[in-house]
Amino acid sequence: MKHEKIVECVPNFSEGRDESVIKEILKVIEESGCKILDHSMDPSHNRAVVTFVGNPEQVAEGAFNATKRASQLIDMEKHQGEHPRIGATDVIPFVPIHGVTMEECVELAKEVGKRIGEELGIPVYLYAKAATRPDRVRLPDIRKGEYEGLKEAIKTDPNRKPDFGPSELHPKAGATAVGARPPLIAFNVNLNTDDLKIAKTIARHIRESSGGLPCVQAKGIMIHELGLAQVTMNLLDYKTTPMHVVMSKIEEEAAAKGVEIVNSEIIGLVPLDALLDVSYARLKLKDFSRNRILDLLL
Amino acid sequence: MKHEKIVECVPNFSEGRDESVIKEILKVIEESGCKILDHSMDPSHNRAVVTFVGNPEQVAEGAFNATKRASQLIDMEKHQGEHPRIGATDVIPFVPIHGVTMEECVELAKEVGKRIGEELGIPVYLYAKAATRPDRVRLPDIRKGEYEGLKEAIKTDPNRKPDFGPSELHPKAGATAVGARPPLIAFNVNLNTDDLKIAKTIARHIRESSGGLPCVQAKGIMIHELGLAQVTMNLLDYKTTPMHVVMSKIEEEAAAKGVEIVNSEIIGLVPLDALLDVSYARLKLKDFSRNRILDLLL
Repeated sequence: MKHEKIVECVPNFSEGRDESVIKEILKVIEESGCKILDHSMDPSHNRAVVTFVGNPEQVAEGAFNATKRASQLIDMEKHQGEHPRIGATDVIPFVPIHGVTMEECVELAKEVGKRIGEELGIPVYLYAKAATRPDRVRLPDIRKGEYEGLKEAIKTDPNRKPDFGPSELHPKAGATAVGARPPLIAFNVNLNTDDLKIAKTIARHIRESSGGLPCVQAKGIMIHELGLAQVTMNLLDYKTTPMHVVMSKIEEEAAAKGVEIVNSEIIGLVPLDALLDVSYARLKLKDFSRNRILDLLL
Repeated sequence: MKHEKIVECVPNFSEGRDESVIKEILKVIEESGCKILDHSMDPSHNRAVVTFVGNPEQVAEGAFNATKRASQLIDMEKHQGEHPRIGATDVIPFVPIHGVTMEECVELAKEVGKRIGEELGIPVYLYAKAATRPDRVRLPDIRKGEYEGLKEAIKTDPNRKPDFGPSELHPKAGATAVGARPPLIAFNVNLNTDDLKIAKTIARHIRESSGGLPCVQAKGIMIHELGLAQVTMNLLDYKTTPMHVVMSKIEEEAAAKGVEIVNSEIIGLVPLDALLDVSYARLKLKDFSRNRILDLLL
């Protein structure tokens, strides 16, 4: 494993009800040499999320072929759902996992975006770390007006001109955002209280948007099955704000309210380094690297 | 990696000066399909330690062939060194690393021990988890009298009769201890003090032999290059006493003396699970397993 380059790709497709469509898409991803790690469909969002990995060449091929297949199977003229979207393949993030830099994933996004634009005739907006302008870093800015609104704006507003492909939406597949970003960790912390207000206050204190920890999104919710309040989070960049820093901050905030952390959970997958960073910090390890971990030497 | 069985083997050979001998031994280990992870020679001990890994079959073959080669190249009649020893291949521990139980490593020790006894005519004592009697669990008990003393005792003392092989030492290679044990972690913690007494007191409080933490060996030493006192440890079973438990105990003991931990170091290799256990504890993670770690899914 140690010499291998691993990129994760987490495309979102505008089909969350007809499983046969997603199966067709998973098939072309696998045929491109990639490994599917996870997929989920949400009927109310009418949207599917697929997680797959491979080396950069495989992932580029898988993302392109999936977008092509989705453009044949999904018709945005007929699509309705709660989640904002601009196309059949709504968004394609490339995520560096192992042996790959963010810069390489930005290049991958540009290369795949260019192919989607030129070969499939689907307009592409580069986003996140691959964005070519500040107002394209965040997906909500790119999705403004959604599929329906973008149909006109892409032709008339120079600010909505895509990075690749034609300045008009693909008749069925719409447009696609393609980008590069760090791995996202869905991390939830349960408190030993049923007081939702406490979780909401802690969430407000730790999330970046309220002046808390960088690259942390958080909200307080109630987990009724457990009768416990929870701080539910997306950690957008564990290198910037590691998991143990989040834990320490929540512990501190909780203690100030007289409550404690019961336990925590990770939803979906987590990069190994995100967990190892927690160990290194707890042990105050110096001069350590992954090539001293026995299992990883094989 | 996830479906593979991995066993580590750390044989000690009674040659710490002539590198050509160790090279010959490394060669047969590699030819047996094993991967050498580390080797070191100590001239004053006149002893070499080799770390290699492979699946159970490969490691069994590597350990047997190394013992055979060592019996041809090392003459215990001429051996002198500070470290206690009974044979050319003095000790062979098998260590379960991944996908293998301790019981399988005990079976491996018995199988390899039997072959060494029967095919090479070298008496074998099973030790540690593979021991057949309580007075053979610890190596110092097996090495009592060393090569020179065992020469007579093995013939006359029924308690020294080996588990496999003849009841007399091999004329050049002596005898060998073969066993199974958990991975050993060499873990050192530096304190922000040059007071050696503090490190010695902490070491006494945490080591098992003085009533401290189970499976922890510890002593206090002075690191003159850094001007810092250090607690230097062998963690004999990280499942019984995890690394973070050791850290917490040292932190507590250090605080009582008004000092703090500066940093720590791991000497040699460490199993991935030993580090992951530290993360899980720090994050209070529930319902988590290695198949949720992205990098390990490939």
